[in-house]
This record gives sequence, C-alpha cells and structure tokens, in this order.
Amino acid sequence: MSETIAIDAELVERLLHELARYGAWGDTGVVRKVYTPEWVGAQQQVMRWAEESGLHARQDAVGNVWARLEGLEGGPSIVTGSHIDSQAPGGRFDGALGVIAGLVALRTLRERFGTPRRTLELVSFCEEESSRFPATNFWGSRAVTGLIGPDEPETLRDYDGVTIADAMRAVGLDPRRIPEAKRDDIDVFIELHVEQGPILEQQGLPVAVVTGFPGIRHYLVEVRGRADHAGAMPMDLRQDPMPAAAEMISAVIARAREIGRPAVTTVGRVLVEPNFPAIVPEKVSFTIDVRHPDPAALSELCAAHEETLRSIAQRHGREVSWRITTSHPPCSSDPELVQLFLDAAAEQEIPVTTMPSGAVHDAQRMAHIARVAMVFVRSVGGRSHTPAEFTTTEDAVAGIQVLTAGLHRVAY
Amino acid sequence: MSETIAIDAELVERLLHELARYGAWGDTGVVRKVYTPEWVGAQQQVMRWAEESGLHARQDAVGNVWARLEGLEGGPSIVTGSHIDSQAPGGRFDGALGVIAGLVALRTLRERFGTPRRTLELVSFCEEESSRFPATNFWGSRAVTGLIGPDEPETLRDYDGVTIADAMRAVGLDPRRIPEAKRDDIDVFIELHVEQGPILEQQGLPVAVVTGFPGIRHYLVEVRGRADHAGAMPMDLRQDPMPAAAEMISAVIARAREIGRPAVTTVGRVLVEPNFPAIVPEKVSFTIDVRHPDPAALSELCAAHEETLRSIAQRHGREVSWRITTSHPPCSSDPELVQLFLDAAAEQEIPVTTMPSGAVHDAQRMAHIARVAMVFVRSVGGRSHTPAEFTTTEDAVAGIQVLTAGLHRVAY
Repeated sequence: MSETIAIDAELVERLLHELARYGAWGDTGVVRKVYTPEWVGAQQQVMRWAEESGLHARQDAVGNVWARLEGLEGGPSIVTGSHIDSQAPGGRFDGALGVIAGLVALRTLRERFGTPRRTLELVSFCEEESSRFPATNFWGSRAVTGLIGPDEPETLRDYDGVTIADAMRAVGLDPRRIPEAKRDDIDVFIELHVEQGPILEQQGLPVAVVTGFPGIRHYLVEVRGRADHAGAMPMDLRQDPMPAAAEMISAVIARAREIGRPAVTTVGRVLVEPNFPAIVPEKVSFTIDVRHPDPAALSELCAAHEETLRSIAQRHGREVSWRITTSHPPCSSDPELVQLFLDAAAEQEIPVTTMPSGAVHDAQRMAHIARVAMVFVRSVGGRSHTPAEFTTTEDAVAGIQVLTAGLHRVAY
Repeated sequence: MSETIAIDAELVERLLHELARYGAWGDTGVVRKVYTPEWVGAQQQVMRWAEESGLHARQDAVGNVWARLEGLEGGPSIVTGSHIDSQAPGGRFDGALGVIAGLVALRTLRERFGTPRRTLELVSFCEEESSRFPATNFWGSRAVTGLIGPDEPETLRDYDGVTIADAMRAVGLDPRRIPEAKRDDIDVFIELHVEQGPILEQQGLPVAVVTGFPGIRHYLVEVRGRADHAGAMPMDLRQDPMPAAAEMISAVIARAREIGRPAVTTVGRVLVEPNFPAIVPEKVSFTIDVRHPDPAALSELCAAHEETLRSIAQRHGREVSWRITTSHPPCSSDPELVQLFLDAAAEQEIPVTTMPSGAVHDAQRMAHIARVAMVFVRSVGGRSHTPAEFTTTEDAVAGIQVLTAGLHRVAY
C-alpha cells in the first residue's frame, strides 16, 4: 500500500468543536476535570461517535472509554487514543485531539479497508492532567496497567478535599471495581498529541514521531514559620517563611535555566497561609515540577533542588519539608514503531522529524504493558495548558494521516 | 482622686469569652469579618451589654455601635473603644479587648462615680482589619470622620467580588446613609488595644501609653508572563512571571531587614494564576505592606521598593504594575493626653512606659476630628493576627484600670 489515505478535515474540525463544548471556558478554553458532569458528557459523546462509526464502545470500571474494531485474527490489540480530561483551564486540543484522531483513524480504516487483520481499539482515558486530584499520576492508564494501589481511591483527595472514591461514586462508578480495568492483551499503544512546545514550529514541520519521554518528579514543599502582625512585630524577631520560600523558588528555577535544555523546572502553584496582606504568613507551600529525559541527570537535578531547599531553610532558620507527589522515570518509544511511523509519514508525503517529548503522557504508563510510540502535531507558538493553545486543522489532519497510515501498516 | 479603681477581673474574662463565641475559629481563634452573621451577633451582644450597664446604645448608619453616658455639662464627647471585626483567622483580643475595656470602664465609672461632668461614649467600630474587603481602610472610623468617598460603597469589593454596599444591605444597613455616621462633636478618643508586638514583654511591663502611629502603605503588585506547558516549553523560551515575582518578594523583605527597626515590610498574600503544578504561571500577584513612623523614611522605603520592582521586572523582561490600596501618613498622640494617662497609671501604681505603635489603628483616623491617645497591654510572645494571640487577664485588667482612671480624670 503506497496510496494516500485521505482524512476528512471537516469531520476533524466538527468533532473538535463539539467536544470542546463539554466544559467550555471562555471562547477557546476547556475546564473538564475528571468525574465532573462535563467529563461525563464528553465520555458519553465519544461513545456515541464510536458507535456511529461502527465500533463497539464500552466504559471500563475506572471510567475510560474503549471502542473496538475486532480483527480477523484476534490476539492482542493495537490501541490508539489519549485522555479526555483537561487542565483548568486548558485548551481544546490537549488530550482531546488524540481521542478524536483515534476515532477518525479507526473510522477511516474501517470505511476504506474493512475488517482489519488484528484488533484495533480506541481509548479515551479518564484522567491524565492531575488538574483535580494533584496525585492521580495518570489515573486512567494506571488502572489499565494495574498500577493503582488498593488504598488510593479512599485517600487521594481533590483540591476541595473530596476523595477520588467519592468522586467516582458521584458519577456511577464503583471504586472497588478499579482492578477490573486492568488489561493484559494490548500489544501496541500509539498516542497522537499536540506537541505543547515550540520545536516543530521552529523547524517548520507539522508532525514528529516521539522517540522518548522525560522523567518527571513533582514536589510539594512546605516552609513553616510563625504568623505575626505585619506592623507590630519587628523584622529581626519574625519567623517569616516568605523570604525563604521566595529564595527557594528563585533558586530552583535559576538552576534549571543555567543547565538549559532539556532540563526544566517549574513552580506553578503557591499557597500562603493565611494569605492576608497584614499578617506575616504562618506557612508558604509551593510545587516544583522537575523534568529531564536522562535518568541520571533527573536524579542529579532533583538532588540539587533538595539541597537548595535544605540550605536556604537552614540559612533562614525556617523548617522545610516536602513530599514527592509524582515520580516517573524517563522511558523510550519502541524503535521499530518509531521507524514504522516515519515510513508511514514518508509514504504519505508528510514532512516529519523525530523528537523527545517534553511533556509526560499516558504512553509512558502504557509502556509497562505494551510497545509504545507517539505522533506529535505542531502547536502554534508552542502554547499549551492554556486556552490560547492552538493547532491548525491542516496540521491535525497531517498527524491523523500519519497515525492512520501507521495503524494500517500494523493492523492490516 | 488618688484611690485605686478596682476592675472586676471576672467580668472582663466573661465578656471576652462570650464575645469570642461570635465567629469562633478552632479553640482560641476568631473569624469575624464585617457585615457577616457573626459580626451582626457580636455588635448586638455589645449593645445588650451596654444597655445592661446603664448606657444608651445605638447603631449608626455604617454599623458602628455607640453607647452613651450623658454628662452634666453636655458638650463634645470623650470616646473610648475599638473595632469588633477580626483577621481571618485572628485572635480574640485584637479590637475586641478595646471594646470590652471601654464597656467595663464606663460601667465601672458609672457605678462608682455616677453621672460624669462630661459625656462619655463607648464605640465598637464596624471594621478595621480589611480582612474581608482589602481596601476598606478603616471603614468604621472613616465613616465617623467623614472620609468615605461617595463612590466607594458600590466599588469596593471583597475577595469574592461582593461590593461593600451589597454586604451592608445584606445586614439591613443602607449604604446611601453612610454620611449620617459622621460626627463633629468628639473631643477625645482613647483606644485600648493589645500591643501585638513583643516590646512590653521584653521590658517586663504590662501597659504602655502610645506616643504615635506608623505611616503605612499597601501595594498590590502584578507580574505578568505567559502560561505554558511545564514540560514542553524549554526554559529559555518561557515568559514565566514566577522567578521575577520571587526575586521581588525576597528583595523588598531583605531591604526592610537591613534597615532594621522601626521599618517593616511584609508580603502576606500571594496569588498565582492559574496555580497548577504543571502550568507555567500566566500571572503572579502579591501584596507589600510597608510601615515606618517617620514620614520621610516611609516615602524613601516605598520609593526603594518601587525601584526594586521596576528593575527586577526589567532584568527578567517581565511586565510589572501595582496599585496602592492603602496609604496613611504617620501621626502622633496628643501629648497632654499621653501625660494624663501616664499620671493615671502612676496613681494606680501600674508600671507603665511609652512607645510608638507598630500597627495602625482607628485612633489614627479619629485624629482627624479629635485629640487621641492609646493604651497598649502586653501581648504574650508578641503574637497577633493569629489564633495564638494571647493577653493575660491580669494585664488586660491593668490596662483597663489605667483607661478607667484616665477617663475619670478627663470626664469627672
């Protein structure tokens, strides 16, 4: 097969537009946190579309939606898809485009080539962003790979204190049944996703095949002091946690800047208690997000950050402590799959490159049970995790064409 | 008169305990923001106690409670009191002790000495802390001194976006009638308050007479950047506002530390948007509270802080802007009143000193229309604006005894 596989651009645009209504935020944004009414609506919409496309759709015990195109030979599945939840607010492409891409790919393959040799499946993962529960760590793909601990449902809490078990029950899911979502019959997982960074734009290319994924560690740091009156307590007698926290934040970001690409460090969340102008704070908490594709370099950077926290706390005479809320080692795509998708892109005459991912993805979790690879499409201005996120329909269609041609090579 | 004026310690303790029920927070704290149900309950309780003590109580148009002991000679009033609202959470002494002290003083004077020569009044100001509306700037004493602008009720908003006019209407007050709260018949205002700092404790003294008040300026600073994905956007291409904001916070606090007493600078409130671990922030906002008793030194410190904000923003290539939400010049107590209260303390054989206030107080506003002074009582550990705030009954009683003896000298 070396003919062009045409992708219906109008269909892609329509599905993106309609999916973005669930949790619409402003003109272009989406707030679709796991186990909320908007999330329920979006997953049901994906199931309807899948059924309309001739696939057999179901929701698993954790809330992932699966849609199946049974192959003649049976055997382990070739899966494509991404996550349905969003940042708060995020854009309409992150995750959603991968779900729609998988749907369009399977629909196109079925319409044009009929029943595949091997079974193809679409997955719409319930949760990837940790935008509601800070410590979910890829709830959807962890359920599929059997990596959710038995105590987690009743102990993980959202930013309002609701347990994830209660959130599941509120949408009709039984947290005790999470183990039933585990799969051991997946051979390949391919995820299409927006790049979320500026590399493809800088190179003038629409599509990349992803060679590997960064290691990531999330810290939740607490610096404790003593609340006092902002006027009556002299500077020299304060136990203000703020200057130590501010210095820590400056220092960890500065270190990642010095090291340069591909090291990154982000302080995206700060909470002050009690957070009033005329009160010296009792406590300052903040997150540190650290990423690096090289395991040794990631460990080294994290160790340096921890030493920074300790030494600044000591110099200021403040108490500091931290918890690691997320930790994933770096991992690689399957080299054969990478080559197969590069070949598919060449065959479709779509300009393509390879690159490591800066973001973490469900594919990293799926690598525990399957061979994985990813297809990235260009992000305008490299923007993501913001309503300003945008990818042109032309680039989305180019990515879906590569995905579809690659899946055709694997499954037909 | 040189006899001891006995203060009923059990009464003081009981009133403090009962008042602390309105908005109780944990074991020792209070959250009593202006125009909330807890606030309504507390002001009504003060009115009941005043009536029980033989005073004529009323609530004015802005919600201040007044209780009057008419003098034989009439003429302008001698007023004592403080504010009924609290930080969120604050302690049970800040403001409340001054209201109770005034109540106990007037009750004690009436019981022991009968009708005064000059009219005595208690005031329980509706609002002083800015804990609900960040820009109220002493709402209660500003109404009494006629300093509330006509547009303020409909434009000042609380942290949830509610206007202060709506908040007033919700508790049965008509914001259009605020001008009726203005007084031009007050000669003297004396406020008893907890020190809120560690000076009296360090000197081993229970009571001070306050010689003057700091100037204060509150800034609300915004540093703007661009939201991006915490993994996919390289450090060198970010427009992260966080490192600039953290450096500004460090720098302004460090400068006040270097200058030393009596200069203070506090960053008590930080808000990050969107405040998620995996999103490079779009915006970081924070407050700066700057105080100094010397007007020139205050201006100099504020100018230095502004220059710091500008130069750090420029170095980081970020946009910074700020609003000044509160600004009060320093002011002095009336020297004759200071001497009168020192004499009263000596007569009562209560060890006393003089000191400038570190905190700002309603007395500063009242200085626009009256001669003012304050009585401070010792704060354990100098703690305030926290539920850990504490003053012993013995010290509270010593302060109330000085207040009562001083009021006797002025009004009988």
